[in-house]
Amino acid sequence: MLSKNKIRLIHDLKQKKARTETGLFIVEGDKMVTEILVNRNQEVSELIATPEWLLRNRYLLHKGIHEVSEVTETEFRKITLFESPAGVMALMPLPDVTYEEKELTGQLALCLDTIQDPGNLGTIIRTADWFGIRNIFCSPGCADCFNPKVVQSSMGSVMRVKVHYTEPDLLLESLQSLDPYTVYGSFLEGKSIYEEELASSGMLVFGNESKGIHPSLKDRIQKPLTIPSYPARDGHVESLNVSAAVAVFLSEFFRRRSC
Amino acid sequence: MLSKNKIRLIHDLKQKKARTETGLFIVEGDKMVTEILVNRNQEVSELIATPEWLLRNRYLLHKGIHEVSEVTETEFRKITLFESPAGVMALMPLPDVTYEEKELTGQLALCLDTIQDPGNLGTIIRTADWFGIRNIFCSPGCADCFNPKVVQSSMGSVMRVKVHYTEPDLLLESLQSLDPYTVYGSFLEGKSIYEEELASSGMLVFGNESKGIHPSLKDRIQKPLTIPSYPARDGHVESLNVSAAVAVFLSEFFRRRSC
Repeated sequence: MLSKNKIRLIHDLKQKKARTETGLFIVEGDKMVTEILVNRNQEVSELIATPEWLLRNRYLLHKGIHEVSEVTETEFRKITLFESPAGVMALMPLPDVTYEEKELTGQLALCLDTIQDPGNLGTIIRTADWFGIRNIFCSPGCADCFNPKVVQSSMGSVMRVKVHYTEPDLLLESLQSLDPYTVYGSFLEGKSIYEEELASSGMLVFGNESKGIHPSLKDRIQKPLTIPSYPARDGHVESLNVSAAVAVFLSEFFRRRSC
Repeated sequence: MLSKNKIRLIHDLKQKKARTETGLFIVEGDKMVTEILVNRNQEVSELIATPEWLLRNRYLLHKGIHEVSEVTETEFRKITLFESPAGVMALMPLPDVTYEEKELTGQLALCLDTIQDPGNLGTIIRTADWFGIRNIFCSPGCADCFNPKVVQSSMGSVMRVKVHYTEPDLLLESLQSLDPYTVYGSFLEGKSIYEEELASSGMLVFGNESKGIHPSLKDRIQKPLTIPSYPARDGHVESLNVSAAVAVFLSEFFRRRSC
């Protein structure tokens, strides 16, 4: 049985303000929640599920789940984010994410400037996770990574990758002390990513869906790269979706490293 | 001034049935409509816009626009698909798309098996267009490419790439007569795409968001390929989003061709 306050809380958690105040975010869906529970080292503040779901998955319950709430299907429909709910939702504690500059020297990381579409951000986090990226730096203008739509399209990768929110110009400035360290950027005009020398570590900067990388960041980017189109075109009318560009960049960096 | 019938027609055009019956589809937004008009060889059944938009863009009007309807902002709000409409929409005739088998021998083409998410399908079409793909074959279970959400996320690429709807098993069977011709497929298990020999033409098959490529198609795929994850994992829990996988595949095929 869900109290009115709980129903209100869950609705409020769609907004960043309530997530910040309560320190909680929502993960909904059979696949993602099951993965959290199988991976027993993740704390769960509350698991909300229908009796059917709990019966089918009772072997997944463990001590790290602080509270289990059994609710009817009708009640679940009051809180679900989906049209066809699977009858399970977890309220998770927001993770603490920190990093030290020196850990960045041995890895690839992403810097996202004002990626506003939650689906794009989620897909980028998911792709980054696939290629072993451990740190993503989002500008304050990016969608919030614990927005339920981002969590959903990341397929839970947002819980494996550390996503930091910081001003990109301050971040890139602080990286100047690292040596050797290269900051790459995705532009419509630049050297072909297939031809440029790529290191196995560094920062990859991607810009806003329609405006690209903010001009104030350009001076901090040592290697502007582009994904050539075929046939070559001026590149001003059309572009790749930013999440497709991230996939191409990471694939190419990864391929070089593994060759 | 928009008649009630016209408002109803535009709402109906969100559904495939009405698009098929009328032979029309909707393109909304400043960027996409402007591109259609700049590219003067595209017929437009009706351009619906606010006086402000028409005043600003009157130099774009041409004889290929069969009808121009000027509507107030209030009226436009009744038909828009957006929360912040730009005040312009075009009703476009559905294109006739045909292909001949022999044209496939010299090019890369995509075969999509039950890609249900409109955003994924649109992003795939946009990425394909970037890499010069001219033909995409969708199974009947895919989203409809003239669904407004697909048109939107394709950023108009759906008007440049030919998207055919056909049964993939019949398509792949018909391709067996082509020689040399290779059918590649994207799988969680297969040979690394970075290591396999890739031709500059052939068919690339991608499967459903959660179920992958239908088992009945597997026998028709000569080269099952995979995008390695880092660190290597069993690949059953997580996966790349299918539109990210398409981006990685096309980038890799394209890179080899241009080297």
